[in-house]
Amino acid sequence: MTVTPLWDAFEASFRVTAQCSGNPFTSTQFDAAFTQSGRDFTVQGFYDGESTWRVRFMPDALGIWSFTTRSNVAALDGQTGNFTCIEALPGVHGPVHVHNQFHFAHADGTPYRPFGTTCYAWTHQPEPMQAQTLTTLESAGFNKLRMAIFPKHYIYCENEPLLPLFETTEDQIDLTRPNVAAFQLLDRQIVALGKLGIEADVILFHPYDRWGFCQMTIEQDERYLRYVIARLAAYRNVWWSMANEYDFLLDHLLSIHNGEVTAKYDYTKPYITHICVQDWDVKRTAEWRAEFKKPVVNDEMEYEGNIPRPWGNISALEMVHRFWVTVLRGGYGGHGETYLHDQDLLWWAKGGVLRGESAPRIKFLRDLLDEDVRQGLTPIEHTERWEFSRVSGAHEGEYRLLYFGEHQPAHWAIGLPKDKDGLYELDSIDVWNMTVTRVEKAELPVSPALRQRGGIIVGAEPEAAFGVRLPGKPYHALRVRPRREDGRV
Amino acid sequence: MTVTPLWDAFEASFRVTAQCSGNPFTSTQFDAAFTQSGRDFTVQGFYDGESTWRVRFMPDALGIWSFTTRSNVAALDGQTGNFTCIEALPGVHGPVHVHNQFHFAHADGTPYRPFGTTCYAWTHQPEPMQAQTLTTLESAGFNKLRMAIFPKHYIYCENEPLLPLFETTEDQIDLTRPNVAAFQLLDRQIVALGKLGIEADVILFHPYDRWGFCQMTIEQDERYLRYVIARLAAYRNVWWSMANEYDFLLDHLLSIHNGEVTAKYDYTKPYITHICVQDWDVKRTAEWRAEFKKPVVNDEMEYEGNIPRPWGNISALEMVHRFWVTVLRGGYGGHGETYLHDQDLLWWAKGGVLRGESAPRIKFLRDLLDEDVRQGLTPIEHTERWEFSRVSGAHEGEYRLLYFGEHQPAHWAIGLPKDKDGLYELDSIDVWNMTVTRVEKAELPVSPALRQRGGIIVGAEPEAAFGVRLPGKPYHALRVRPRREDGRV
Repeated sequence: MTVTPLWDAFEASFRVTAQCSGNPFTSTQFDAAFTQSGRDFTVQGFYDGESTWRVRFMPDALGIWSFTTRSNVAALDGQTGNFTCIEALPGVHGPVHVHNQFHFAHADGTPYRPFGTTCYAWTHQPEPMQAQTLTTLESAGFNKLRMAIFPKHYIYCENEPLLPLFETTEDQIDLTRPNVAAFQLLDRQIVALGKLGIEADVILFHPYDRWGFCQMTIEQDERYLRYVIARLAAYRNVWWSMANEYDFLLDHLLSIHNGEVTAKYDYTKPYITHICVQDWDVKRTAEWRAEFKKPVVNDEMEYEGNIPRPWGNISALEMVHRFWVTVLRGGYGGHGETYLHDQDLLWWAKGGVLRGESAPRIKFLRDLLDEDVRQGLTPIEHTERWEFSRVSGAHEGEYRLLYFGEHQPAHWAIGLPKDKDGLYELDSIDVWNMTVTRVEKAELPVSPALRQRGGIIVGAEPEAAFGVRLPGKPYHALRVRPRREDGRV
Repeated sequence: MTVTPLWDAFEASFRVTAQCSGNPFTSTQFDAAFTQSGRDFTVQGFYDGESTWRVRFMPDALGIWSFTTRSNVAALDGQTGNFTCIEALPGVHGPVHVHNQFHFAHADGTPYRPFGTTCYAWTHQPEPMQAQTLTTLESAGFNKLRMAIFPKHYIYCENEPLLPLFETTEDQIDLTRPNVAAFQLLDRQIVALGKLGIEADVILFHPYDRWGFCQMTIEQDERYLRYVIARLAAYRNVWWSMANEYDFLLDHLLSIHNGEVTAKYDYTKPYITHICVQDWDVKRTAEWRAEFKKPVVNDEMEYEGNIPRPWGNISALEMVHRFWVTVLRGGYGGHGETYLHDQDLLWWAKGGVLRGESAPRIKFLRDLLDEDVRQGLTPIEHTERWEFSRVSGAHEGEYRLLYFGEHQPAHWAIGLPKDKDGLYELDSIDVWNMTVTRVEKAELPVSPALRQRGGIIVGAEPEAAFGVRLPGKPYHALRVRPRREDGRV
């Protein structure tokens, strides 16, 4: 019997040599019901050219699965088959779901913390450049990639797509016939991302169009969506993003990622799993979290670069800073890179190579979290101390991470636990130079006299907090961990 | 006849040797009516110790002024006198008023742009330190000083005041008897600030108290206010700030400067001349301006320093950055400095010397504005281009100043005027290194092809704008001025 590892895509294909009448993309209904242990799932099949139909399915449980097809084409109807789902391959943890309300985890419980980047139209570039993108992603440290299915018409991204997405003859695009070669390439690249441990955040609609995709009818939209779902939904690393900058896209009602800063989608809708925002004002992350009660992913905090667009020219340090602020207020951030290039090869549009300086620093933050965080960080509440919200900090149990950003305290106490007995170890972290330096508990040089005297004491130390001496430089963080007996340093 | 220069303080004093019954501060009513050309003004007099009463008056028009006193003490009643008001002394421009809705000007029309700093309790420090504060202010470049009348009980400011503000014996403070020596010193220091061209932003009430001033009765508050007004109102450089961090001060209803970030006073009240806010979120400046329709002065954008308080430990660069953002969004900023010192000599509390690096950069911005701005800057509207609010920019007529902050464009066009004929001169400004470098108009390397092709063009260039090549580094500004025939460089 065929075997398929857990959370891999099983695929059955059917070649129908008898002539089909009409357009196989539109005239054929084809699906399959997969069953195991009393559970069953119906998935759409799809036409993949050369008289071949396929159906894909991702098993979520070990054991024998069987399926039966249904179709209005006799040769595709009532076909049966089965496979054995075996243990997941090494390093495969299954699809990502929301976990612990504001966070994510793979199906096997492994924490997943999105540290994403953006290459909108990378699958529409020449093949060598697509290979280069994958090579870059192999070591860049990102674990999510925002990418669009449609080609992109926008500044710095004016080239025709490598392959047209629908069958095209002399400027006539036949929206009833997907170009299977283009979609086969898309399949391969999503699988390739999966092998690198990267979630593909697939944008289904976007407004950057000159080919007419924005003017598709509702029927055309729906057929396109069904085709995409049939092809891609069995890949464990696919996320759906209904639309990018939906508020620029007046033809569609389904949508997620906002464009204009002030207009936000109603993320409380039950079928929206998480909040995908575009907002530079990252100190507001905890507000969005509190408002929508779902994970917050800020995929466009503006991009590192130098183009003449304010959303695409923040410094590398500022990009890193915004990641730290976002994560330390309980959210997740997204990276993008937009440096001017004489051939318009900008990572954010086309992939290729990274030319900036933020990526390794973002990876450094990711590695720090991987070291200690399991269920997800919770922001240290504004109410714990009213001044706290001026800086950023979060905790998981006794683990705390504070980030000072543009603040440069030489001493600190706010938001730290009581520690009369030396129960904690403290590290000062330089977020740009990526250094971790042990620091020691220190008596703060303020206010014992003040406390004794009474009166209205505004701003006095919280009783029994302990202080710490810090470098007094901006863009530093402070890590607090319970001291461990194994002498971790 | 006595002469008094325009906008200087005329003072008449009366020594009453006959024994007065009771407390001269509370039992004596004493005022004077000043008249000139059919206008008349009644001002309170005050007791200044040693059997001496004084009345002060600032003439606002040239010519002969006469006055008549009124009192319940015979010797102070019906006294008359006069003086000739002569031309203002060189450099004296008169008191500051709101001008052009969002801005300020002196009485003679000279623009006044507040670039303030903060030394809350400087008049309560030892005299050498007060002298040092004045020496520092002489060259620091600030033209407004926030200072409190009451002494201050707060972290880093725990010393007893140089002179008690009311007559004090063995821990008994007689709130009915101001200590005239303390108030005479306050008079002198306000006059000294005036000579340096510095407005004294006098805080009448604040919550940092251990002496009981926060528990004064309404009657005591009112008597204190009348006394302060009688003494100080004739000094042209006095501003009144009703209360500092009024929301921490539960005893008083009159108030201005907020403490908690989210709570803002109702600045629309007609007797409030301008908006004094405390908010680090300086990109919101234009919002406050639009909401209250009065000048916005953000006196606490957090302070340069390194103390363990998030409001007092931003970097010098961040302090400078916040000034630029505030000014380029149509407001005015305030400086403060809070570096740890082994004897707790922090500028923000006590004055003395500046140890930071922001002051000369703030002065640099002030000097740049002095060069060109007359009526006041108007923010470049968000609506002019939706992306614009991510950076900061303002104009006065054809003069434009754009500030990019954490953004680092290598080219720029948004918010610039059309300029087919080379009518403008352009300068790139490094706000930290304080350099001004001529830059030239440049064709932007984007999108002619895009424009020709049609389709939905998101983010294309505004028609006929001109672009400019910039350093591609953060913390730079761009100045646009009409080219002048005298060949200004």
